[in-house]
Amino acid sequence: MTPSGIRLAALIEQFGGELIGDPDHAIVSVATLRSASATDVSFCHRGKYLDDLRHSLAGVVIVAPGDRDVYAGNRIVADNPYLYFARVSALLNPDPKPALGIDSSSRVHPTARIGAGAAIGPFCSIGANCHIDDDVAIGGHCAIGDHVAIGAGTRIDTRVSIYARSVVGKRCVILSGAVIGADGFGFAPDGGRWVKIPQVGRVVLGDDVEIGANTTIDRGALDDTIIEEGVKLDNQVQIGHNCRIGAHTAIAGCVGIAGSTRLGQRCMIGGAAMIAGHLELGDGVIVSGGTLISKSIREAGIYTGVYPFEQNKKWTRNAAALRHLEDMKDRIRALERRFPDPKD
Amino acid sequence: MTPSGIRLAALIEQFGGELIGDPDHAIVSVATLRSASATDVSFCHRGKYLDDLRHSLAGVVIVAPGDRDVYAGNRIVADNPYLYFARVSALLNPDPKPALGIDSSSRVHPTARIGAGAAIGPFCSIGANCHIDDDVAIGGHCAIGDHVAIGAGTRIDTRVSIYARSVVGKRCVILSGAVIGADGFGFAPDGGRWVKIPQVGRVVLGDDVEIGANTTIDRGALDDTIIEEGVKLDNQVQIGHNCRIGAHTAIAGCVGIAGSTRLGQRCMIGGAAMIAGHLELGDGVIVSGGTLISKSIREAGIYTGVYPFEQNKKWTRNAAALRHLEDMKDRIRALERRFPDPKD
Amino acid sequence: MTPSGIRLAALIEQFGGELIGDPDHAIVSVATLRSASATDVSFCHRGKYLDDLRHSLAGVVIVAPGDRDVYAGNRIVADNPYLYFARVSALLNPDPKPALGIDSSSRVHPTARIGAGAAIGPFCSIGANCHIDDDVAIGGHCAIGDHVAIGAGTRIDTRVSIYARSVVGKRCVILSGAVIGADGFGFAPDGGRWVKIPQVGRVVLGDDVEIGANTTIDRGALDDTIIEEGVKLDNQVQIGHNCRIGAHTAIAGCVGIAGSTRLGQRCMIGGAAMIAGHLELGDGVIVSGGTLISKSIREAGIYTGVYPFEQNKKWTRNAAALRHLEDMKDRIRALERRFPDPKD
Repeated sequence: MTPSGIRLAALIEQFGGELIGDPDHAIVSVATLRSASATDVSFCHRGKYLDDLRHSLAGVVIVAPGDRDVYAGNRIVADNPYLYFARVSALLNPDPKPALGIDSSSRVHPTARIGAGAAIGPFCSIGANCHIDDDVAIGGHCAIGDHVAIGAGTRIDTRVSIYARSVVGKRCVILSGAVIGADGFGFAPDGGRWVKIPQVGRVVLGDDVEIGANTTIDRGALDDTIIEEGVKLDNQVQIGHNCRIGAHTAIAGCVGIAGSTRLGQRCMIGGAAMIAGHLELGDGVIVSGGTLISKSIREAGIYTGVYPFEQNKKWTRNAAALRHLEDMKDRIRALERRFPDPKD
Repeated sequence: MTPSGIRLAALIEQFGGELIGDPDHAIVSVATLRSASATDVSFCHRGKYLDDLRHSLAGVVIVAPGDRDVYAGNRIVADNPYLYFARVSALLNPDPKPALGIDSSSRVHPTARIGAGAAIGPFCSIGANCHIDDDVAIGGHCAIGDHVAIGAGTRIDTRVSIYARSVVGKRCVILSGAVIGADGFGFAPDGGRWVKIPQVGRVVLGDDVEIGANTTIDRGALDDTIIEEGVKLDNQVQIGHNCRIGAHTAIAGCVGIAGSTRLGQRCMIGGAAMIAGHLELGDGVIVSGGTLISKSIREAGIYTGVYPFEQNKKWTRNAAALRHLEDMKDRIRALERRFPDPKD
Repeated sequence: MTPSGIRLAALIEQFGGELIGDPDHAIVSVATLRSASATDVSFCHRGKYLDDLRHSLAGVVIVAPGDRDVYAGNRIVADNPYLYFARVSALLNPDPKPALGIDSSSRVHPTARIGAGAAIGPFCSIGANCHIDDDVAIGGHCAIGDHVAIGAGTRIDTRVSIYARSVVGKRCVILSGAVIGADGFGFAPDGGRWVKIPQVGRVVLGDDVEIGANTTIDRGALDDTIIEEGVKLDNQVQIGHNCRIGAHTAIAGCVGIAGSTRLGQRCMIGGAAMIAGHLELGDGVIVSGGTLISKSIREAGIYTGVYPFEQNKKWTRNAAALRHLEDMKDRIRALERRFPDPKD
């Protein structure tokens, strides 16, 4: 990429696709179809934006084969425009490189090993026997407990807590405010009081895991809480102790998963869904936003359970009827018994 | 205000209203009707507290015109007692003034500009090219990224993260643990894996915005996430990337708003409500607590969708019947067809 | 406990129960039935794990009287195996002792009193007139405001905020990221704008309270927000201003309780439940996960309100029927009127 941007011919060379237009046109930044200008690359991956596509002023647009002739300007035809755009955008917007080395204000225990190319911001504390691998970036104000291992190339933003003995994989991203490895919620009842159960497990994050802002993942009670490779967690997600989240599962914001539940691989959990404890969800289960899952699900598919919203007045009437649902069922049955259908 | 408090006559002079009682009586603090004593001011703005009003020992009570004769002691009659009380309380309880200047333990980048009257607590980091305007108070342990702008008179409490390039308006309040401007949750699927989309937008907060404790607001993917002036967000609210929240909208605790959704002005969103992504809610939409909004709403009004709670035994029966609702509808229709109403 | 572990005879001596097996066998750690080996203690408290019990390799298993002969190896028979295990585990896994004294990087106001045996980690700020009692452990990066009192033996982990004037009892545990005492969400409407109500109350935590990671508890508007002794709050719980949570109540993750609501003693609130404001729940009320409570509940018992989840296709049909529920009720009534049951 030159100061004047990257040529479209270079994009084709690097990422493939078919260019219709000027191979020497150069772009420098990304934008939406509506806000793009001549030095921007944009994309169109959904039919509903065809009108925006038609009127865009983008320097180049990445489009699906079916949309190859909607836009008159430069376009790149690709099978998966969104994925293609993701790669172009990553090229144009590399992660800012933080200052290498350990900020003088931070506290690194003498027994901690810090790899080459690590960047540790101000006001961090890093405990005894930690192993921070090469090219790890840790923003300021992080609290890393004893015996924590962090894999190469991982980026941890500001104000993250990682409790002792946690393991973080390679190339992970952990956003600000996340808490990894706090005590699981385990108490034994003792005559109306609660006695705390020591939580002796760990949290283990695989490679390429992303953890959202203010998300919390508790360490296991006895065994470990495990987040497998490629899992993506949005903000304010809560993962209880002993959970296992299968590889490449994506979990949207405000989701809670209670203790000892296991999710399969490539699941998708919609925002604010809640999954009760001690359940198993198979591979490829998709849960709609706001749904509460109270039983295990073996079969892949989409599962939903949300009372549909309505204008408050209508809701009030229907919600009242709902309390008599079993009774309504009985009354229908009674009518049917008294008047049996002659066709049956 | 003298050490011995503020005279009722002075309140009337400053805030209006009608005083019934002793203009020389002085008050020093605020209290509820039940706990107030002779040097306290209290208020009554709801009919259900009339009994507390009657038996209060407050030095003065602010009451609505309809309640002017319920309390025998000093009272101030005002059209909006709660608002009047808010102003009196702000007079009696000014924000504590933190120590001016920059705490010596904090790290302020040499290129950052800090306005007059700023107060920056201990263990803060403030990045390159920040512009912190006059009279800004930043509590300790805050992580402010590069190129952040913070408007005059804003108060930021302890342990707040503000990512690079965010813009905060004037007279905002940001409570502890909030995270402003973290990466939006954007990934493109690539054969069962997720490829991260760089999030190049910003978060822009208007003037007089309040952000609750541990609330998170993600920065935009391409355009900005915008919180307009006067918006009030409670604790543990999650705002996804590219959202726009209209002016003076109030959002209660634990609400999640998924990406690219737009709320109009003066909306009110009840606690734990969830709003799906890519929706538009018009001005003046009121959403009941716990409701999941899955479609756009054009018209102002109250919208609700919560399954009514019941004793578990009754719920179990009704929830079972619910799974056969479509079937019940069919059976009613079948009965009606076999026995058409002669009046129809 | 010797380096070679603790003998089973010593456990019986300390905690009671009946030993069947070798009193000289020594254990050093805890494990699940499946992962335990000869130096581990495990337990079985639910019928569904009987198969694991039968095949366990644990050095000793704590079992209920009914399961005394399922396992062939060493076992301890106890009335409450989970509670017994909690005590053994606490013996084997004592809290790690942090370094005593005040880390040199921390800022303690000269007027703050710090008790004997206190351990204060790096990058803490402790305000004026605080009283930190004996044997308190405060992890790094904590922000403790002015006039805060913390009782003896309390453990506060990293990155916790405690606002001015809060009171924390004895032997409490506060996990990372919690925010105690932030401003309650109180605004008076003023012609389409919001005017902030000063929040002059405090947060008061009783003895033996546990607060989860990233949990928030707002201080009272006028009176205090009170969490009574022995209450256990999981992660990402939100408690609004003026609430009172009764002694020994347990609240699971992601629960929100709106302002001025009171819970009785020994309640149990399931994960992601939401309780509206200004309500009263009596002693011993149990709320199922995900339930929204919108009315006060006097009577102890289990309360539930969650739309049951289904495969999306089936849900779509039933949810559509739900919008016509009141109409269905009317149609059943009409049929019944036209065809009165001769038995009635």
